[in-house]
Amino acid sequence: MTITRPDCEQRDRDDPLGALRQHFDLPEGVIYLDGNSLGALPRQSAARAQQVITQEWGNGLIRSWNDAGWFALPRRLGDQLAPLIGAGANEVVVTDTTSSNLFKVLAAALHHQKQHAPQRKIIVSERSNFPTDLYIAQGLANLLDDGYALRLIDAPEELPAALRDDVAVALLTHVNYRTGAMYDMAAQTSLIQAAGALAIWDLSHSAGAVPVDLNGAGADYAIGCTYKYLNGGPGAPAYVWVNPRHQATFWQPLSGWWGHRQPFAMLPDYQPDEGIGRYLCGTQPMVSLALVQCGLDIFGKTDMRAIRAKSLALTDLFIELVEQHCADFPVTLVTPRAHDMRGSQVSFEHPQGFAIVQALIARGVIGDYREPGIMRFGFTPLYTRFADVWDAVAILREILATGSWDRPEFHRRGAVT
Amino acid sequence: MTITRPDCEQRDRDDPLGALRQHFDLPEGVIYLDGNSLGALPRQSAARAQQVITQEWGNGLIRSWNDAGWFALPRRLGDQLAPLIGAGANEVVVTDTTSSNLFKVLAAALHHQKQHAPQRKIIVSERSNFPTDLYIAQGLANLLDDGYALRLIDAPEELPAALRDDVAVALLTHVNYRTGAMYDMAAQTSLIQAAGALAIWDLSHSAGAVPVDLNGAGADYAIGCTYKYLNGGPGAPAYVWVNPRHQATFWQPLSGWWGHRQPFAMLPDYQPDEGIGRYLCGTQPMVSLALVQCGLDIFGKTDMRAIRAKSLALTDLFIELVEQHCADFPVTLVTPRAHDMRGSQVSFEHPQGFAIVQALIARGVIGDYREPGIMRFGFTPLYTRFADVWDAVAILREILATGSWDRPEFHRRGAVT
Repeated sequence: MTITRPDCEQRDRDDPLGALRQHFDLPEGVIYLDGNSLGALPRQSAARAQQVITQEWGNGLIRSWNDAGWFALPRRLGDQLAPLIGAGANEVVVTDTTSSNLFKVLAAALHHQKQHAPQRKIIVSERSNFPTDLYIAQGLANLLDDGYALRLIDAPEELPAALRDDVAVALLTHVNYRTGAMYDMAAQTSLIQAAGALAIWDLSHSAGAVPVDLNGAGADYAIGCTYKYLNGGPGAPAYVWVNPRHQATFWQPLSGWWGHRQPFAMLPDYQPDEGIGRYLCGTQPMVSLALVQCGLDIFGKTDMRAIRAKSLALTDLFIELVEQHCADFPVTLVTPRAHDMRGSQVSFEHPQGFAIVQALIARGVIGDYREPGIMRFGFTPLYTRFADVWDAVAILREILATGSWDRPEFHRRGAVT
Repeated sequence: MTITRPDCEQRDRDDPLGALRQHFDLPEGVIYLDGNSLGALPRQSAARAQQVITQEWGNGLIRSWNDAGWFALPRRLGDQLAPLIGAGANEVVVTDTTSSNLFKVLAAALHHQKQHAPQRKIIVSERSNFPTDLYIAQGLANLLDDGYALRLIDAPEELPAALRDDVAVALLTHVNYRTGAMYDMAAQTSLIQAAGALAIWDLSHSAGAVPVDLNGAGADYAIGCTYKYLNGGPGAPAYVWVNPRHQATFWQPLSGWWGHRQPFAMLPDYQPDEGIGRYLCGTQPMVSLALVQCGLDIFGKTDMRAIRAKSLALTDLFIELVEQHCADFPVTLVTPRAHDMRGSQVSFEHPQGFAIVQALIARGVIGDYREPGIMRFGFTPLYTRFADVWDAVAILREILATGSWDRPEFHRRGAVT
């Protein structure tokens, strides 16, 4: 049975999450399918920024470190984020970048193994992991030298064989940034730990998009960003979670003053905070940090079960419509079809993927492109409508059918592509 | 001859920098002498934040990484900041926190020595350095183990003796956060380098407050924050400078994707950017980062020579008035009197310094307190008036004379003190 646009409109009318779209400021004439890269603007963010800037900074000045709760904000936001990733209170801080936070937890994992199993010096990850994760692991391994190294697998099936008795830690991204493929976090964590290694999860493409249960999975460490599905704003600070069983012995070398037990005692020796403060390092960018709350507040109006249900409905619809309407063109689904094996994005490969994505953007359908040949489309259930999916596929079909992607301007690459 | 308030008012009328105060939003009834901790709000910042949030993020969405120049912003702001610290174009990036940036340059310095003088494993610094600098150095030394360690001196005079042939790097803060004492950067850099070590300068308390000439001094590395005298906003991103002679071989372990030669090629191996991009790590908080420009723009309306002249006039006046009006009380000048030995802050010690600072704040005179017993007063020439100095001292005198600081609420400590 062919799906029509009126069918999609009906689904929007029936959508229990439909009302949440009003909490975002979305530009006219745009179908935004790139919330997996940069989430859209929550309607409260502009006012919150004004409050932080004019009231807290302008009027409160230095007093706002106490009076406006700036110093406590990484912890407060961590507590607000925690339920979305299956973490408890006092387990998460929002701070620094995903890359820096990965450095912290990788160093902590290697430090842990050095105490308990010093022969374990290998970091296992995937060649298809998001590059910054691999670069940070390389940076730490090169710094440590002395046998520390990275071992990359080419496919998830290779993980068991890679988990030899020299492995200290496995670093996996829950939902792959290119393909949208999702790991079974609980199963893989068990596998990693049974092999004597620690498990670090990068949640950048899953937090806010799919239910995550870190404590349920018994994971060791997790990090992720807040500017994708969590709608925290461009480059908004990232987060760190550490399993409570590691908290008291957690040690990391980015031991800046915000991680100190008594930061304002100005003692010359570092003594880590007794709690999660030890995951912090330096002074945080308050305006950007404060906006993380506006994104998280919207999640308070629903739950991850409802979000996941709509996410799967949107992505199923997108796959079905593309396969129905674009069957004449070399468009290949890269994302796994099975629900339990994918996140909230759908990737299609096309030899001219780059130019097609630019042509889509010119028509107001914003997805993005990742090498090689991957057209990525992210579906944020908080603001994406079923009719948007229908319209996006209609425009894709038209671009493919007319060949309108083949213009010089659509082949030109900017600094960020 | 006794200085009167009308004398101070006349100095304000004659002040060539007097007009710059209008570029700041300062609260009524406040004399703000804490710009050395958190700079005041530039009048343009609120509008700039709205532009970034509603136009660039809200409307531009993901396209703003190219179209609004987000990806290039750390370099562009670095170029704008460079003249204030005696750096050239393409030498500075604004990014991350001071603590993270210190970790990068310390690691780079140790890496450099490992190639050239592998027996040099000691980091020399001062016990009175800002604690986060010491904590970061400890964190890196502990991570590396293998003989790497921190050697602390108790006074600047001890530096020559500490610079033995095992020293890899000396890490000094140009202007001391507690005392306001300033090093002769050129002389100390020469001393450090003559001993075979590398020189790292922390400019957090000097950039924007005193003329700094990194290239003139031949320093090796520098880092600093933008939220003090540079008025970038609470926790605004920090900066890194590396002497061009080290640029091509600079290596640091926080090797996130923003430091890669081709970040969007998504290659699994880290290859550092050929230029200053290699000092970057992860995705930056764009709203906070963009506001750094508003602070820097104001410096474009004057120059560091004029700023320094007014800074010395303000601090001389403050010292003179305190010594004149508060001579009956146990208030001791901690800051060196000589112009070439101090920055733009004046610190006085008093056994009840904490309570006195709280009493001053309650009266609208905002300075701050640092253990032990130090009352700090920062003088930002861009917005501080000579009459403010007179009024601040009059209020200090009254608080001391009446003993009004001795109330329970002035002894109570918040999280941040």
